[in-house]
Amino acid sequence: MTVARLSDNRYGKARVRVMKLDRSQPQHQLLEWTVRVLLEGDFETAHTLGDNSKILPTDTMKNTVYARAKASKAGTPEEFATELAEFLLGRNRQVQSVEVKIESVMWKRLIVDGKPHGSSFMRGSDELGTVLHTATREAKTLVCGVENMVILKSQNSAFEGYIQDDLTTLKPTADRLFATAMTADWEYSDGGAAFAMRHHAVREAMLKTFAEHDSKSVQQTLYAMAEAALAAVPEVNRVHMVMPNKHCLLVDLKNFGQENDNEIFVPTEDPQGYIEATVVREP
Amino acid sequence: MTVARLSDNRYGKARVRVMKLDRSQPQHQLLEWTVRVLLEGDFETAHTLGDNSKILPTDTMKNTVYARAKASKAGTPEEFATELAEFLLGRNRQVQSVEVKIESVMWKRLIVDGKPHGSSFMRGSDELGTVLHTATREAKTLVCGVENMVILKSQNSAFEGYIQDDLTTLKPTADRLFATAMTADWEYSDGGAAFAMRHHAVREAMLKTFAEHDSKSVQQTLYAMAEAALAAVPEVNRVHMVMPNKHCLLVDLKNFGQENDNEIFVPTEDPQGYIEATVVREP
Amino acid sequence: MTVARLSDNRYGKARVRVMKLDRSQPQHQLLEWTVRVLLEGDFETAHTLGDNSKILPTDTMKNTVYARAKASKAGTPEEFATELAEFLLGRNRQVQSVEVKIESVMWKRLIVDGKPHGSSFMRGSDELGTVLHTATREAKTLVCGVENMVILKSQNSAFEGYIQDDLTTLKPTADRLFATAMTADWEYSDGGAAFAMRHHAVREAMLKTFAEHDSKSVQQTLYAMAEAALAAVPEVNRVHMVMPNKHCLLVDLKNFGQENDNEIFVPTEDPQGYIEATVVREP
Amino acid sequence: MTVARLSDNRYGKARVRVMKLDRSQPQHQLLEWTVRVLLEGDFETAHTLGDNSKILPTDTMKNTVYARAKASKAGTPEEFATELAEFLLGRNRQVQSVEVKIESVMWKRLIVDGKPHGSSFMRGSDELGTVLHTATREAKTLVCGVENMVILKSQNSAFEGYIQDDLTTLKPTADRLFATAMTADWEYSDGGAAFAMRHHAVREAMLKTFAEHDSKSVQQTLYAMAEAALAAVPEVNRVHMVMPNKHCLLVDLKNFGQENDNEIFVPTEDPQGYIEATVVREP
Repeated sequence: MTVARLSDNRYGKARVRVMKLDRSQPQHQLLEWTVRVLLEGDFETAHTLGDNSKILPTDTMKNTVYARAKASKAGTPEEFATELAEFLLGRNRQVQSVEVKIESVMWKRLIVDGKPHGSSFMRGSDELGTVLHTATREAKTLVCGVENMVILKSQNSAFEGYIQDDLTTLKPTADRLFATAMTADWEYSDGGAAFAMRHHAVREAMLKTFAEHDSKSVQQTLYAMAEAALAAVPEVNRVHMVMPNKHCLLVDLKNFGQENDNEIFVPTEDPQGYIEATVVREP
Repeated sequence: MTVARLSDNRYGKARVRVMKLDRSQPQHQLLEWTVRVLLEGDFETAHTLGDNSKILPTDTMKNTVYARAKASKAGTPEEFATELAEFLLGRNRQVQSVEVKIESVMWKRLIVDGKPHGSSFMRGSDELGTVLHTATREAKTLVCGVENMVILKSQNSAFEGYIQDDLTTLKPTADRLFATAMTADWEYSDGGAAFAMRHHAVREAMLKTFAEHDSKSVQQTLYAMAEAALAAVPEVNRVHMVMPNKHCLLVDLKNFGQENDNEIFVPTEDPQGYIEATVVREP
Repeated sequence: MTVARLSDNRYGKARVRVMKLDRSQPQHQLLEWTVRVLLEGDFETAHTLGDNSKILPTDTMKNTVYARAKASKAGTPEEFATELAEFLLGRNRQVQSVEVKIESVMWKRLIVDGKPHGSSFMRGSDELGTVLHTATREAKTLVCGVENMVILKSQNSAFEGYIQDDLTTLKPTADRLFATAMTADWEYSDGGAAFAMRHHAVREAMLKTFAEHDSKSVQQTLYAMAEAALAAVPEVNRVHMVMPNKHCLLVDLKNFGQENDNEIFVPTEDPQGYIEATVVREP
Repeated sequence: MTVARLSDNRYGKARVRVMKLDRSQPQHQLLEWTVRVLLEGDFETAHTLGDNSKILPTDTMKNTVYARAKASKAGTPEEFATELAEFLLGRNRQVQSVEVKIESVMWKRLIVDGKPHGSSFMRGSDELGTVLHTATREAKTLVCGVENMVILKSQNSAFEGYIQDDLTTLKPTADRLFATAMTADWEYSDGGAAFAMRHHAVREAMLKTFAEHDSKSVQQTLYAMAEAALAAVPEVNRVHMVMPNKHCLLVDLKNFGQENDNEIFVPTEDPQGYIEATVVREP
């Protein structure tokens, strides 16, 4: 068969879980990351001829994550992603591009007798910190973010004035529950620095806006949150957000002789509104 | 066919999600529960003859959850479970026993400008509060608990001195990571009161013990945590705990010329240790 | 603290995944099991004193599953569960009772050029075969079953004649979709033999009845399926079934000027009807 | 704040589940789809001003899916996706682009007395059929595929001759288990026709190649499968494949005095190899 030609291709190791514990101080530091490493490069003959001579095994990439985690002084996934990509590019001539994706799991300290304990931790929410780093020998990009931040507003959320047609059954409302499992990511104009501090500042700006916004729609609140992130951290030049609308449906209690003035809701998983936008800094 | 006879049977509605929002004060109160209601009673002819005349539809049970949630002043799932069972028993002569199970989802307030916000919330961890209530016309039981509380100790955990045989490959260790997703439940000798306060006290006692215990095994720590709960709340007369051991494996870095002194671990999901015990108050 | 006393307790290893491949014939045989082993016995001092001298590590139980899987000639999970329990009881004096639970994953052969291929397989549905075996030195029980068998009837299912009260909103229907994710388990009066054949016969009897039953309710169909299993395999003396009703809601299309004569449905996950019963053989 | 400018944005409804049942013949036809609809268009003022006058509510999109499912004669998700996009574009001047994604759930008929039953179905595997259709008023694209096809080869799979360095611990093997949960998608040069037949032909070609290929690596087998798809259906002009390597690890039984000649494996979820490539038809 000669009909086929290899086009874009990449490979690597996904779901490499690693936990790093620093016990050098009485307050232990605990990091948990899930890492994915993908390589692009000169891999055509592996596909077409079964020639593995340029293939770095994905098992070795897994080992690389462990060994570099040990060797690294990185305190943030952003720094570790950058180090890891550099290490792999430096040792593998056949590789043109390395992509490293890291998800950070939330652990918080146990509070014992009112004080944060040094060596005991509790899993926080399912919110993840995210990093997507791509490096070639010429250029780098770094996208930082959060995933699955589940937030809910119990007032100051309306949805009215939309298109009404013969398929409309939704009632306009000046007052609804607004819940979402937000994903956001952003880039820095200076490549990045003080990652933990900036991450915190972006996140806080978004949350404060979410809480205080007088929302006419998910779109408007999403935009306001992105705007707040741009205002809070001058080095952020682009914010991308996805806000699935996790609907909490007002239960109709009229049949039972009851008034339901935004009191009783049914949270649902399906279907979900889906709102996505990128907001950029104006020059 | 006359070979068969109906034995134990029950039916009801599971996974009834309900959210209750109280906006009467500036600090809104938000409750999210997942409710399961199961009935036992005189349902033989439904099975054998297709006679539905004694069947309360599970759809009606769902409506009952919503309508009672609206009518109820219950601030805890324990109270709501009790009310719901009483309501169903009172209206359904054919029912002999009602079981209500409630899982409470964690929501916490957003902190804005250093203060808890009145109408904005964030999903907490996947820990659930649980209630299992069973009521007949003669008797009641109430089991309260927590599920999926994920905790980790980064020191003071050993596992040594165990049986060594020809199938042993585990190395004894005086210092390991100890992580678990704990489930615990308990009963009160007085039937129950001040549920939120007691729940908090049991939980705090367990967590403090987990943090401070010098652990020789999961079994020993589990027992100490149960003991602490019994000591903290005199009305608790029985504690049942399940502690799957979520293994964090120390990575062997010797091949890479590195020492791994409890620094780099791989968290794993399969397989899992499983430790379960009931601890009762001595008379 | 002297308030506490250890009551029931057990421990072991859960989620031990093992795959066994037999390549002795051109048609390879592939088994995939998830095993849980739990021990009860003389473990009090482990809990109260941190004395591990009678503790068989759960890691060793995992190794035991692997080593026995290699040594065993068992072709069914029922036989393997029995062998495993016997092996552990025989080597561990301090153990009084062993419980082995096995879930079997479905793999089927790829069909290539119309013929079952010898060494290529495809994952089947999420239906699991289940075994729960408990053994002491005096007695044994064996419960066989299936889990998560998702089936749907598109006619001959009604639900009418039920209790109507002021919380009823469900409309009676002579014709609805009936979908469930069935769990069933059963015991044999003779302890068990010809496991694969009997499993197949029970399953086929249940499915044929599900397909052909003129259903007045989930309860009635469940009962008829259990009755059919008892009739099909004389050694079955008890059938326990759980049938969550996976509701497929008829969409109201009247607002859009359309008739919906059982054509368009929304499958939902929450809430779920829950029907459970045990049917026993009459002496 | 005037720092921000809206860039790319879209919104819609995700996870719209719909089941369509055709009972016009004794052999009922059952389709289950999960639909996502996303719109791009003139939505700037919704974001910046809270002006919803050009917003078609996502709830209406959900209704549209239901109503069009009823009205449609489409027997394949490909046709339905196309119809749905056309319908939405035709009614909404403010919309420039509609993307419709459909996942098809597998149902198969129950076999009763050796024959496919007319009105009883069983859930098949978790493999999904997929369609991703994008339409503007000028152009259309259609990408068809499969997701989560879990397949396993128990011979004719090697992995040798790869790069060995100081981070390598993997042993080369001429004989390993090869398991994957494949995702594949493809485009037709003629826009598409006879969708069900082509889907079947692509799938069969891939599976036959998977079964018969003498694999030197996942890369090589992936490429051969794509090549086979191109050969089988002349209208396919591009195949994109992702093959996570679901590792089945050979258990080391030497410690227990046992030889493990590719007999006992541990299937694992983390970490996973990840192989991705696009193969195009040569002109």
